[in-house]
Amino acid sequence: MSAATIDRNRGALPQTGRDARLAIRHGRYSGPTSGLAPGNVQGNLAILPAALAADFLRFCQLNPKPCPIIGVSQPGDWRLPMLADDLDIRTDVPRYRVFRDGAVIGEPTDIHAHWRDDLVSFVLGCSFSFEEALIQEGIELRHMTQGTTVPMYRTSIETIAAGPFRGPLVVSMRPMKPSDAIRAIQITTRFPAVHGAPVHVGKPELIGIADIAKPDFGEQANPRDDELPVFWACGVTPQAVIAAVKPEFCITHYPGCMLVTDRRNTEFAIL
Amino acid sequence: MSAATIDRNRGALPQTGRDARLAIRHGRYSGPTSGLAPGNVQGNLAILPAALAADFLRFCQLNPKPCPIIGVSQPGDWRLPMLADDLDIRTDVPRYRVFRDGAVIGEPTDIHAHWRDDLVSFVLGCSFSFEEALIQEGIELRHMTQGTTVPMYRTSIETIAAGPFRGPLVVSMRPMKPSDAIRAIQITTRFPAVHGAPVHVGKPELIGIADIAKPDFGEQANPRDDELPVFWACGVTPQAVIAAVKPEFCITHYPGCMLVTDRRNTEFAIL
Repeated sequence: MSAATIDRNRGALPQTGRDARLAIRHGRYSGPTSGLAPGNVQGNLAILPAALAADFLRFCQLNPKPCPIIGVSQPGDWRLPMLADDLDIRTDVPRYRVFRDGAVIGEPTDIHAHWRDDLVSFVLGCSFSFEEALIQEGIELRHMTQGTTVPMYRTSIETIAAGPFRGPLVVSMRPMKPSDAIRAIQITTRFPAVHGAPVHVGKPELIGIADIAKPDFGEQANPRDDELPVFWACGVTPQAVIAAVKPEFCITHYPGCMLVTDRRNTEFAIL
Repeated sequence: MSAATIDRNRGALPQTGRDARLAIRHGRYSGPTSGLAPGNVQGNLAILPAALAADFLRFCQLNPKPCPIIGVSQPGDWRLPMLADDLDIRTDVPRYRVFRDGAVIGEPTDIHAHWRDDLVSFVLGCSFSFEEALIQEGIELRHMTQGTTVPMYRTSIETIAAGPFRGPLVVSMRPMKPSDAIRAIQITTRFPAVHGAPVHVGKPELIGIADIAKPDFGEQANPRDDELPVFWACGVTPQAVIAAVKPEFCITHYPGCMLVTDRRNTEFAIL
């Protein structure tokens, strides 16, 4: 997938969830999903064998801030009707990552060839939803201004383990003026199903982040002198936890290439 | 008013708003009102001549975070039925401060002798209400642990002027661990009528506070290394603004000796 392909594809972005999925399903779009179907919820994908699914579901329920489940399938069923009527999880993500024993064995745009009758699909809420709400309230998101990926950090906060699933909480960081940080806490509190309120503000060393300028994932977006770093639980947490387990088989979305649903971000606001 | 008097009086604190007011009205209680009628709203008092009242009302409406009005009287009327049916503002505050041309001319426990037909009473919400909610959620308030008065600071943030009323925002500060600061922002957001969410967090120098260890009012409660200072708009703001105007006549409550109402703190929660 070259940058040119993405740019050409992004010339006329689908505006509805169904249009986005149809374009993706029929191979007309294979790029990042940021900007597709504005206002619709996008989700992180994790597909696991049924033998691991019960523990992973429990892990998510024990750690709802990094792992907000918005959809789960029946074993072997490629449908997720709670997210969209027509959804086919085998085709509707622009690009996947297929793992065997912890190693990437492919990054296809369709997983028909990998499908098994024991696979359970988990879709987890993502920060796109609350970022939309922050932007609508006039709060600057530095990584967007910069055109970079949000900086993410492994923390000293441990998730609550379930079966083999365990590991550190990963957080994303957005620098903000203190008054915007207060407003951002208020706004994201309204969205508990998509990471919710921040987990930390102001003192990265207290959560095991030694150098704010060196994110573990994503790119730098360092706070200025008049800003505080604000930290949210991040959907990379479950991905990192799954990677550590090295399951005999699993499939995730390719970074940035999320599942576009028919649910609206506003549906997930509690008030 | 000696400490002994307060301690003796506090031996059996009135538990209802009416009992508190009756004890105060009949001279059986003249101490600080903290701890009286738990769960009831207490208010800051400012009594001004009608000639100044319209500007002051406008000032409060322009600056609702430091000046949350919960009751206003008719000129010359000592009743405030929106706060309690039996309330008599001339007797129901334990101790008053009477000012003439900006100078304190008395600190009586009853203001019958000072009453005038043109006086308008303003009652403003106070931080006791949101502090109760914070304590109920298990958040430590350092000044209470210490048994001291909350530290307050003049800031570089200007209030919006109305007539002669103008001056800096005064804030109170409570040190908290970052996760408690986030929770405290959520909790106090529910109480917009009693100062509401913080106005600042984390960087006192950005709001003109040069030394956190030197409050302008109250006593030190310095943040520890693992804490952030959290700042709320403070009811001392209107008191300082009125003092600067040096009105020909005005009456306030004596510090710590508030008006105990029949309204419940929970009535003021928006959700």
